[in-house]
Amino acid sequence: MRDNRPALGVGMVGYAFMGRVHSQAWRSVGAFFDLPVRPEMAVLSGRSAERTAAAAARLGWAAVETDWKELVNRDDVAIVDICTPGDSHAEIAIAALEAGKHVLCEKPLANTVAEAEAMTAAATAAAAKGVRSMVAFNYRRVPAVALARKLVAEGRIGEVRHARAVYLQDWITDPEFPLVWRLQKDKAGSGALGDIGAHIIDTVGFVTGQRIDGVSAITETFVKERPLAEESAGLAASGGTARGPVTVDDAALFIARLSGGGLASFEATRFATGRKNALRIEVNGSRGSLYFDFEAMNELWFHDATLPDEEGGFRRVLVTEATHPYVGAWWPPGHGLGYEHTFTHEVKDFLEAIAAGQDPSPSFADGLRVQRVLAAVEQSAAQDSRYVRVEES
Amino acid sequence: MRDNRPALGVGMVGYAFMGRVHSQAWRSVGAFFDLPVRPEMAVLSGRSAERTAAAAARLGWAAVETDWKELVNRDDVAIVDICTPGDSHAEIAIAALEAGKHVLCEKPLANTVAEAEAMTAAATAAAAKGVRSMVAFNYRRVPAVALARKLVAEGRIGEVRHARAVYLQDWITDPEFPLVWRLQKDKAGSGALGDIGAHIIDTVGFVTGQRIDGVSAITETFVKERPLAEESAGLAASGGTARGPVTVDDAALFIARLSGGGLASFEATRFATGRKNALRIEVNGSRGSLYFDFEAMNELWFHDATLPDEEGGFRRVLVTEATHPYVGAWWPPGHGLGYEHTFTHEVKDFLEAIAAGQDPSPSFADGLRVQRVLAAVEQSAAQDSRYVRVEES
Amino acid sequence: MRDNRPALGVGMVGYAFMGRVHSQAWRSVGAFFDLPVRPEMAVLSGRSAERTAAAAARLGWAAVETDWKELVNRDDVAIVDICTPGDSHAEIAIAALEAGKHVLCEKPLANTVAEAEAMTAAATAAAAKGVRSMVAFNYRRVPAVALARKLVAEGRIGEVRHARAVYLQDWITDPEFPLVWRLQKDKAGSGALGDIGAHIIDTVGFVTGQRIDGVSAITETFVKERPLAEESAGLAASGGTARGPVTVDDAALFIARLSGGGLASFEATRFATGRKNALRIEVNGSRGSLYFDFEAMNELWFHDATLPDEEGGFRRVLVTEATHPYVGAWWPPGHGLGYEHTFTHEVKDFLEAIAAGQDPSPSFADGLRVQRVLAAVEQSAAQDSRYVRVEES
Amino acid sequence: MRDNRPALGVGMVGYAFMGRVHSQAWRSVGAFFDLPVRPEMAVLSGRSAERTAAAAARLGWAAVETDWKELVNRDDVAIVDICTPGDSHAEIAIAALEAGKHVLCEKPLANTVAEAEAMTAAATAAAAKGVRSMVAFNYRRVPAVALARKLVAEGRIGEVRHARAVYLQDWITDPEFPLVWRLQKDKAGSGALGDIGAHIIDTVGFVTGQRIDGVSAITETFVKERPLAEESAGLAASGGTARGPVTVDDAALFIARLSGGGLASFEATRFATGRKNALRIEVNGSRGSLYFDFEAMNELWFHDATLPDEEGGFRRVLVTEATHPYVGAWWPPGHGLGYEHTFTHEVKDFLEAIAAGQDPSPSFADGLRVQRVLAAVEQSAAQDSRYVRVEES
Repeated sequence: MRDNRPALGVGMVGYAFMGRVHSQAWRSVGAFFDLPVRPEMAVLSGRSAERTAAAAARLGWAAVETDWKELVNRDDVAIVDICTPGDSHAEIAIAALEAGKHVLCEKPLANTVAEAEAMTAAATAAAAKGVRSMVAFNYRRVPAVALARKLVAEGRIGEVRHARAVYLQDWITDPEFPLVWRLQKDKAGSGALGDIGAHIIDTVGFVTGQRIDGVSAITETFVKERPLAEESAGLAASGGTARGPVTVDDAALFIARLSGGGLASFEATRFATGRKNALRIEVNGSRGSLYFDFEAMNELWFHDATLPDEEGGFRRVLVTEATHPYVGAWWPPGHGLGYEHTFTHEVKDFLEAIAAGQDPSPSFADGLRVQRVLAAVEQSAAQDSRYVRVEES
Repeated sequence: MRDNRPALGVGMVGYAFMGRVHSQAWRSVGAFFDLPVRPEMAVLSGRSAERTAAAAARLGWAAVETDWKELVNRDDVAIVDICTPGDSHAEIAIAALEAGKHVLCEKPLANTVAEAEAMTAAATAAAAKGVRSMVAFNYRRVPAVALARKLVAEGRIGEVRHARAVYLQDWITDPEFPLVWRLQKDKAGSGALGDIGAHIIDTVGFVTGQRIDGVSAITETFVKERPLAEESAGLAASGGTARGPVTVDDAALFIARLSGGGLASFEATRFATGRKNALRIEVNGSRGSLYFDFEAMNELWFHDATLPDEEGGFRRVLVTEATHPYVGAWWPPGHGLGYEHTFTHEVKDFLEAIAAGQDPSPSFADGLRVQRVLAAVEQSAAQDSRYVRVEES
Repeated sequence: MRDNRPALGVGMVGYAFMGRVHSQAWRSVGAFFDLPVRPEMAVLSGRSAERTAAAAARLGWAAVETDWKELVNRDDVAIVDICTPGDSHAEIAIAALEAGKHVLCEKPLANTVAEAEAMTAAATAAAAKGVRSMVAFNYRRVPAVALARKLVAEGRIGEVRHARAVYLQDWITDPEFPLVWRLQKDKAGSGALGDIGAHIIDTVGFVTGQRIDGVSAITETFVKERPLAEESAGLAASGGTARGPVTVDDAALFIARLSGGGLASFEATRFATGRKNALRIEVNGSRGSLYFDFEAMNELWFHDATLPDEEGGFRRVLVTEATHPYVGAWWPPGHGLGYEHTFTHEVKDFLEAIAAGQDPSPSFADGLRVQRVLAAVEQSAAQDSRYVRVEES
Repeated sequence: MRDNRPALGVGMVGYAFMGRVHSQAWRSVGAFFDLPVRPEMAVLSGRSAERTAAAAARLGWAAVETDWKELVNRDDVAIVDICTPGDSHAEIAIAALEAGKHVLCEKPLANTVAEAEAMTAAATAAAAKGVRSMVAFNYRRVPAVALARKLVAEGRIGEVRHARAVYLQDWITDPEFPLVWRLQKDKAGSGALGDIGAHIIDTVGFVTGQRIDGVSAITETFVKERPLAEESAGLAASGGTARGPVTVDDAALFIARLSGGGLASFEATRFATGRKNALRIEVNGSRGSLYFDFEAMNELWFHDATLPDEEGGFRRVLVTEATHPYVGAWWPPGHGLGYEHTFTHEVKDFLEAIAAGQDPSPSFADGLRVQRVLAAVEQSAAQDSRYVRVEES
């Protein structure tokens, strides 16, 4: 059936794990949200012509390119969606922005602060011409996390005293798990720190509305050498007999002061046996507390300390009500959402910002801020854990 | 990009709550599962031309009909997907089957045993000609529920002693909530009993692999009269000032004997304040136990009583591993699925059965079996709760 | 150090599981509660002189008797605490009351309605002379259960629609577990029904403040024959090679109507593998809900439906605040209590009632009411599950 | 009744919160455990004659002293139990040991490393003469914590990668809560750090069997000034209008390396709104993980990673089986214990060690080790969070 809204062609670079979930978001968003524009899944690019064509057929992209530079310059592409490893983000994003394309870029924004600064500069220049950019910290779009942010912003937990964030996975506890790109510094920038630590840094900032003032850190690589990877898909992979050095951290722990005077702790690890994707955050304030665990993503735990002690306690808010952020578009109460919906919400907000002529959030500047925290963590870890202040713009 | 698999045109009747979620399933299934056929979202039918056209545009259907009879006879329709209230299921399904179309029919299969019997007869006749039919008990396709079935079938919990199933909602606790079609016997057949009770009857049968021998029941309508409905969407609605009688049950409780000698209890209610979509089932066997709650749908709790007492306990299996039913097609461990995925799995299984020339499950005969339990419940409730055996085919 | 409060000598009959926990209650109560009287652990009676003496030495009783009739008539005994199996309750309690002794009697009050009626008549006659009696439904004295009662009484959950109570254990799932007295009808009266079903019947009545109007029931004995018991201690026991018939129910399920118009379901079983002492009750009202599980006895879950949907949810009230029932006498918040404390609270309330010249609660009449529900359950189960109204006094 | 075991007179110094719970332990231990000796609650000392006498009467002590020096030298005292604030521990403990009395001393062992060293030296000297000493880290005696230690020691979780420990309370979030002794450095030594941080330091060491190599720390005092205290009881207190400075930390966070190569994080705070006594520890090893939360003290969560992924998950072990540490002495499965039982277990182990002529555990040397970690934390916090190695003996 016809649709009279203006179309926006999307070109996506990369079709692995992130590419699959972004595709589902682009495919679904229009059926659930009343958008002012209509995204079209125009072009997919990847290095292998054959594999890219197969992915495009499966994921629903109309055309393919084997060179992202071609994609970036196509007339039928208004939005470039970057789903590649971090080492290529800067080059692609800057080229796309200079070509006047709106850019959605996976996190972490880049592998170094310098790259992130260049990208942020490009984004600022582009914004002046109405070209928008956004970094894909998708966990901000979990309804429960968005609700947490709202409650903090409304003052419901008062002054923030503590934030306690961990991101726990266990997919490389087996020392025979191979040396995939995520374990190589030149591709991934860092290990657990940049991959999942970046998410909790952003989430704590988003929920509390505060900056991280400085950090004191310890990092560790438990398994120093691994079989060279033969092939991988998503986070799964198999290895051969040759071995190579793991050049990133397996785990990063840091404690921090927040700009509002509170204290925070962070832990990102791929060695928390039995924890699969436990992005957890608790915030304690003078009037209440909040707790979230992504492994139970449809729940937010809220303690309202203004209630009488006798009946106080953490309540399990099932974040599936029509009044909750994003939820009205979906199903009745109690019918939960999944991981992929965070991306659907992300592209929805991105498209709405583009249509409204506004800068979407989180911006590249937000991504740069996270990058600077990552850099401070690495510096502290290298300097006997001493407190390192996070550089300000 | 091109796709060489044979296409199967789908015609869907109805576009409300069930139509929306079925659409998402048809839209998504091919991007995640390697299907032998390719579903095409061909036609949507609804009574209002305008509203149907709008729904089709939004949900991604290529054409519309205002008469389901036209849809059923279109050449570009190979599958008829019935998403209407229960009072029209029999007529549509039988017509579709007779027209040689495969049929996926929402639950409960029908509003009466007689209708369900006629539908089952039509399905049997159609199957002889290679035409397939399936009733949409989607909760069987929750990965955790499918895993529970697998563990029981493998003997992991031994002989079943107890099943304890509830389906708790609270969306009509407000006496001013209006008289929507789900509260009218002529449209819905029954209330909580047929709407959600049917799900737990099917789920207990599926997980335990046993029939319900007989039941002893109590039903109740707490709010006897409600405002006439003005408009509704999904399970939400608003009411006017005129009132009408509620002609269905608000809650149904029954206890039962299972064919294997175990005991079971069931409760379906729309008055469990604070419970939103709590389809819960616990099964206790001689060697172990299982527990599931749809409000935390990515978890299955498993107690293995063959472990030493000292270290025994219910374990929270996060059903997000690639080795779990359906999960390999989706995301890495710990990245949960949502309500809609149960439908995606349903159409995946349906399409595979069609392609394989096999009868899908649950069949219309399974739907009839549930219908007979519903009838026994109503009969027991009407006869002083005396034990009523469930009629056998 | 000296204590000027009047002393009340306690004589306890029986020293097995219940005797041990009652002893701990008598021993501890004065150290935590400001009592108007001072209980003295005067006499313990049991049939074996040697074993009774050993138990008395260990549990702290000053003297022993081998005939409870002697105990009942001793001048240094003001209170008789009956901790024997149900078949001896009536005789001991009536004799004690006639001897002018206050009586605390373990539950179920008796093995038959007739016995319970006789006991209640004796209690009424005794009360006229200032002699007090109480039946030991200890779960009323769990702080969380007392808080639940308080919240219901204050109208916090509105009109009660549903009560859902189970008492799940698994200590006899092994068919080789021997035929202890609790599995013999002549000693125990009934099986899971009277032993643990009695507790949930009382608890539902206590928390909701309503009577059970009638019931429809199913009972079952899964293991019909067991090794004859050689010795037992508490709930543990070992068996020999000879076998005998199990003459009580292993599980009892019943559904009920409450006097206020709500519906209730009950299940008592010793075959819920993995559930150890799961006395659980959920009550759903028009304004809120409550949930309790004894396996996490320091928590009460409360859903206040008068809060906005957006922030509603079941909250875990840690019932360890000084403002909670009984808790002020103990430890700081978060420092939980255990099973035995329910008995300490019980004797505290009993002693206070005696000192105040008031009838304690639950009374023998309350115990009789439970007995009548048990009888109605047995009758319904024997009559094809038909609805049996509970006899009124 | 008579008891032929040798008696050991106990003299307790202090009768506030710790004194009350120690009294309950001494009072109860003999009724549940088969002890080789018989503790007698001989003497209680306190500064106020009147209040001490009242406490003794209530708590069951036979005599009183107003000078602890008298108590320490009484012939009827074989054991000195120190329940005073930390500033008096060293003097009392050393005097008692020199007088040949066995000593049980509350934690933290002392307020400074120097004091703890002197105490440890005295303990070593006393041990040579058969005089025993123990520091009261009671949480080691939670059955679930003892089970955790056992599982780690048996290799069930493999090599320890991570320990994650927090001790969260919220009793001083109100800035008007008064300046009780626990908030004064001269009395308490430190704040959250020494009071509750000491517990998690000891518990991590106990469960993992590893030392803390070094720490990087941040501490904070959120509320700098408070009303001067007028009176207090347990952790509750009320304040007047005059104010004084808070001289201890409100919260302490630190990250650490363990002697076995793992990483650990610690947080002790009295500002975690809604958390009442949340001593939580998670340990992740190469073969499994463990999780404990004192607010649900009868549970241990165990993930056994050697099970197939498909059925893996954290299992809730209800630590109430007769085979669990300490539990056989108490109640049937599912009948939980409370806070006070940890002290009953403590004195049981202490008495058994005395009777066996062995040094009990944790020793004063263990207490000194904790003290050195506390000192390293304070030093790191004062030195820009740089990593400070913990001094070795």
